Amino acid sequence: MAEESTATEPPELTVDVTELTALLDGRYADVRAKVRTLLPAYASVLEDAETMSREAFRERVKEVVLEIAGTGAAGMGFPKEYGGGGDIGASIAAFDTLAYGDLSVLVKVGVQFGLFGGAILQLGTARHHDAYLADLVAGRLLGCFAMTETGHGSNVQALGTVATYDAAAGEFVITTNTEQAGKDYIGNAARHARVAVVFAQLEVAGERHGVHALVVPLRDDAGATLPGVRIEDDGHKMGLNGVDNGRIWFDGVRVPREALLNRFADVTEDGAYVSDIESAGRRFFTMLGTLVQGRVSVGAAGVSAAKVALTVAVRYGLQRRQFDTGAEDGAEQLLLDYGLHQRRLFPRLARTYALHFAQEVLAGALHDVFSGITPDEESRRLLESRAAGTKALSTWLATDVIQECREACGGAGYLAVNRFAALKADTDVFTTFEGDNHVLLQLVGKGLLTDYASDFSDLDQLGMVRFVAGLAVDTVLERTSAHKLLEQIRAVLPGGNDDWHTDSGLRDPNYHLAMFRFREEHRIGGVARRLKRGVDSGMNPGEVFSRVQDHVIAAARAHVERLVLEAFVAKVEALEDGDLKLTLNLLCDLYALSEIESDAAWFMEHGRLSTQRSKAITREVGDLCRRVRPIAGELVDAFAVPGELLRAPALVGGEA
Amino acid sequence: MAEESTATEPPELTVDVTELTALLDGRYADVRAKVRTLLPAYASVLEDAETMSREAFRERVKEVVLEIAGTGAAGMGFPKEYGGGGDIGASIAAFDTLAYGDLSVLVKVGVQFGLFGGAILQLGTARHHDAYLADLVAGRLLGCFAMTETGHGSNVQALGTVATYDAAAGEFVITTNTEQAGKDYIGNAARHARVAVVFAQLEVAGERHGVHALVVPLRDDAGATLPGVRIEDDGHKMGLNGVDNGRIWFDGVRVPREALLNRFADVTEDGAYVSDIESAGRRFFTMLGTLVQGRVSVGAAGVSAAKVALTVAVRYGLQRRQFDTGAEDGAEQLLLDYGLHQRRLFPRLARTYALHFAQEVLAGALHDVFSGITPDEESRRLLESRAAGTKALSTWLATDVIQECREACGGAGYLAVNRFAALKADTDVFTTFEGDNHVLLQLVGKGLLTDYASDFSDLDQLGMVRFVAGLAVDTVLERTSAHKLLEQIRAVLPGGNDDWHTDSGLRDPNYHLAMFRFREEHRIGGVARRLKRGVDSGMNPGEVFSRVQDHVIAAARAHVERLVLEAFVAKVEALEDGDLKLTLNLLCDLYALSEIESDAAWFMEHGRLSTQRSKAITREVGDLCRRVRPIAGELVDAFAVPGELLRAPALVGGEA
Repeated sequence: MAEESTATEPPELTVDVTELTALLDGRYADVRAKVRTLLPAYASVLEDAETMSREAFRERVKEVVLEIAGTGAAGMGFPKEYGGGGDIGASIAAFDTLAYGDLSVLVKVGVQFGLFGGAILQLGTARHHDAYLADLVAGRLLGCFAMTETGHGSNVQALGTVATYDAAAGEFVITTNTEQAGKDYIGNAARHARVAVVFAQLEVAGERHGVHALVVPLRDDAGATLPGVRIEDDGHKMGLNGVDNGRIWFDGVRVPREALLNRFADVTEDGAYVSDIESAGRRFFTMLGTLVQGRVSVGAAGVSAAKVALTVAVRYGLQRRQFDTGAEDGAEQLLLDYGLHQRRLFPRLARTYALHFAQEVLAGALHDVFSGITPDEESRRLLESRAAGTKALSTWLATDVIQECREACGGAGYLAVNRFAALKADTDVFTTFEGDNHVLLQLVGKGLLTDYASDFSDLDQLGMVRFVAGLAVDTVLERTSAHKLLEQIRAVLPGGNDDWHTDSGLRDPNYHLAMFRFREEHRIGGVARRLKRGVDSGMNPGEVFSRVQDHVIAAARAHVERLVLEAFVAKVEALEDGDLKLTLNLLCDLYALSEIESDAAWFMEHGRLSTQRSKAITREVGDLCRRVRPIAGELVDAFAVPGELLRAPALVGGEA
Repeated sequence: MAEESTATEPPELTVDVTELTALLDGRYADVRAKVRTLLPAYASVLEDAETMSREAFRERVKEVVLEIAGTGAAGMGFPKEYGGGGDIGASIAAFDTLAYGDLSVLVKVGVQFGLFGGAILQLGTARHHDAYLADLVAGRLLGCFAMTETGHGSNVQALGTVATYDAAAGEFVITTNTEQAGKDYIGNAARHARVAVVFAQLEVAGERHGVHALVVPLRDDAGATLPGVRIEDDGHKMGLNGVDNGRIWFDGVRVPREALLNRFADVTEDGAYVSDIESAGRRFFTMLGTLVQGRVSVGAAGVSAAKVALTVAVRYGLQRRQFDTGAEDGAEQLLLDYGLHQRRLFPRLARTYALHFAQEVLAGALHDVFSGITPDEESRRLLESRAAGTKALSTWLATDVIQECREACGGAGYLAVNRFAALKADTDVFTTFEGDNHVLLQLVGKGLLTDYASDFSDLDQLGMVRFVAGLAVDTVLERTSAHKLLEQIRAVLPGGNDDWHTDSGLRDPNYHLAMFRFREEHRIGGVARRLKRGVDSGMNPGEVFSRVQDHVIAAARAHVERLVLEAFVAKVEALEDGDLKLTLNLLCDLYALSEIESDAAWFMEHGRLSTQRSKAITREVGDLCRRVRPIAGELVDAFAVPGELLRAPALVGGEA
């Protein structure tokens, strides 16, 4: 087209797949290599998911989980004295690599070692560690994490299960008072868990102290449900049918005083409630904060699932031909040579790379906080916010990428053997579990608006509305990290449409960063203004929140996208000059510009993008896609999904 | 917010559900009522899909299809003399209502009566009708429609199966020359079909005449595969596992001369090929054109699936409470009272209404063309284009709506009992079968650009590039219907940003129509300009097409959206004044404005939306959502999905 640059195209890039894989694998390359060698032995599980009855498949998945536990790949995050690997970062790396395989196996690993094991480790003390960790790490004791209730998913502070302390007996009495207070969607509950970590309202001497966790036996050694415990199967699910989710009700079940996971609060022998954290809300969120690894893991698994989908779809596009090309040999054109096909797949490929590196930074932060390298309060809060936001983006990425890749493979994409069926069904719940994505982004938004105020945890959404409305907008902005970046923004984005009629600097990372930072800052300020205006106009805080909610979410998204871009840009800048750096730079540009393109209306509305420059960005995205085309195969090969897991040899072993 | 109008809100609307259902059901209310009474008896099939083995479920679905055939609900489109209902419009209405139930049943009905039966009816002549129709309408003869091949999905003109005429024997010899030329994804092939309508390259006396259809027996009365026929099971699919899809290869299978479906071409007794249509391409597209009912049906089914999803999600949002509202009674807030929740569901609800009425117009056009009311060539072409485009939009609607509704139901949405699992998995292939959506929109775009030139059918994409590039851009525009609407556009959209700083007229349908029409006209002109520029610059036509492809798709989409809006506006305008009209008007405004909002960047780039007005539209969409909120329950109740098909009584029978 005349619109495209007629200048000489830059030379084609050469991608060294091994080198790129090494970059992606990073510091835990050996862990990832180990898991990659484990996975082919379990490739048949992918087929079992289709052919076995639900009950048989659950048993099969349990077996595989126990075998994996036997290799040490599942317990890497636990202390070495209990048979773990003593390396939290390694445990995330192992988990995200396991995500190339069957996802029921992955999620059952997550339930047993992440949720159940994590709760014992993080909320318990030595007595619980000594009693349970060695057995659970080895897979001898299976357990579950019983938090969510039918009536309360996202608002866990309002759970209905109660644990009342009976001082005379020195026991807690666990009771489910209503049907809606039954625990629900609990993985491992329907069949395999012997014990549960149960979250309940703690009541001592007639006083409620908020939600606490206790270890409660569910089944005897023969697998029979214990007295007072009622369990129901959640039945068939959209996916993950190898995981036995269920509901649990308790009718006056008694556990000893020591069953309370007492790291943050305890009941003394003489029946007194004690805790170093005074506020019940803050205490609960401190407990939850220690469980942040689950969100990091789910996000990482989402990115891995997207990688599998892209591997299949790109390879398919490199061998499938369709319609006349005008080529002299009469061959039909490769799907991947169609501009639209490139447009559908490559920005998503670039975004997958972006979220890979964002997850890498996040996993590093997790490791540092939980290994005592940066155990300070601020690092913890930033980690929690980053984990919540990245989880939302990574799991939505999975949903979006898998769907587009499936459609890009036409009818072949619908056959289970090509993996999309299970990928789609199994990952679907990622956007919901470990925190609903919208609720997570609201948390991120609340943190941004209140700068993680020390009373942050106590602020529900209405408290947040009142708190922010009581501040000057400038005060809100001063509290945010976005504000600190303002000077850089102003320097690169002089503002006004007139300055932007050319397409110069479109591939300058400083331009991308400035745009992302401006959006974040402006979005946060906009929310603050709206909250103030709403409250000032006399509207009740609930109504104010309802009307501002989508702006809160948008501000949080803008914040997390900025973190993602910064992680990607930093990664690229740290590389030595050469084709690897140019390749990553190309993907980073494509990620940044396609993100700006997708939000172009907002940037135009806020005076940061002229109509001419907006069109130039669209052309640039097309150009970048054409530059990705010759290296697209290598870019997915670098994910190094074991060939045995790409089930259809006819599909993926072709001309590419 | 201060931004919102502080004027008195209009009074709440009252929705008479029965009246609204009657409006939606339209001229075929009795047919839809009949099918609604049939469906509850088959509600258990929804559960069978989860609990039965694949083989057992296929048999179960076959039984149900035969029972439905027995009621007459499946054969309404066939001539009465063969046991049909003689009413094509009725057959679409019956089909889209069946889509409230299990979709394997629906698709098997579609395979048997739509694809197989439709091919016999439309491509065959009296000898075929007499031989097959009565049996197939009654379900005594099951068949399949064998067009797609492993190697050729979308480019069906390039199929590899060959039918060679053996003049001496008076027989055709059907042969699959390569593995890739095997028929693939063929419904009914793996188990139940006795005969197939096979599409093959017809070769007579050494000369090829393009793709034709023949009736070929596959199995004997005992179900054993006949000599020369090899059938393989497509195995497990993402969804629709009650339909037995398979692959078929032919090794010199002989059928008599009379097996050729000879409405448009024949081979005479003395071995001469005869046809009234000279061009092989045009002949084939004429044949395909008679099969347009399949696309109309799939689109209608997509809209029905979206209705089921919306029914569940809206009712869930009306009973599920979450987080503190600040209400005095301490009750948590209903999900549907959250602004974000409204934003997620209501524009999709409005779009579903829009596509409902678009499908109604389309079904009417189908009925008129095939019942001889408007059998002219132009009506046929407009029908084919409209069917292709509406199918794409309706099936993407289903994918999008079902996904958002599932996420809006949180963990409950992931349980199979709440229907999203099957809805999502079963409808996923709708975007691919009966024509890949992108390929269909390309067809629409090609038609717009060439004004369905008489040599239209012969133009492949490269021919189209050359053809359009040879015209003046004005000529292209003059050929399009968009151009004819230009005067109206200019009158309502004076152009220039400065005229649009207020938010006046945002709810004026003439404004919406003018925006949609402007976009269509400008998009088409843009494609023509790009094609010319590309060819003029010496780029090869394949490369030109690749680069312009996304613009072709965008132009086609803009065209179809305009048709959708026109259908909706016309429907509203025809209503008498009253709450029903106000209700539909509200939904039409919400559809139009949220569509403009989603494409706001483009409108701004092209000078038809100021940044201020763009923001005003976003606010207006929020306002409209709040107006929909009090009547949301009634708006989904009017879809009248039988309660038995909403499987989870706890979910849908609650406080709403």
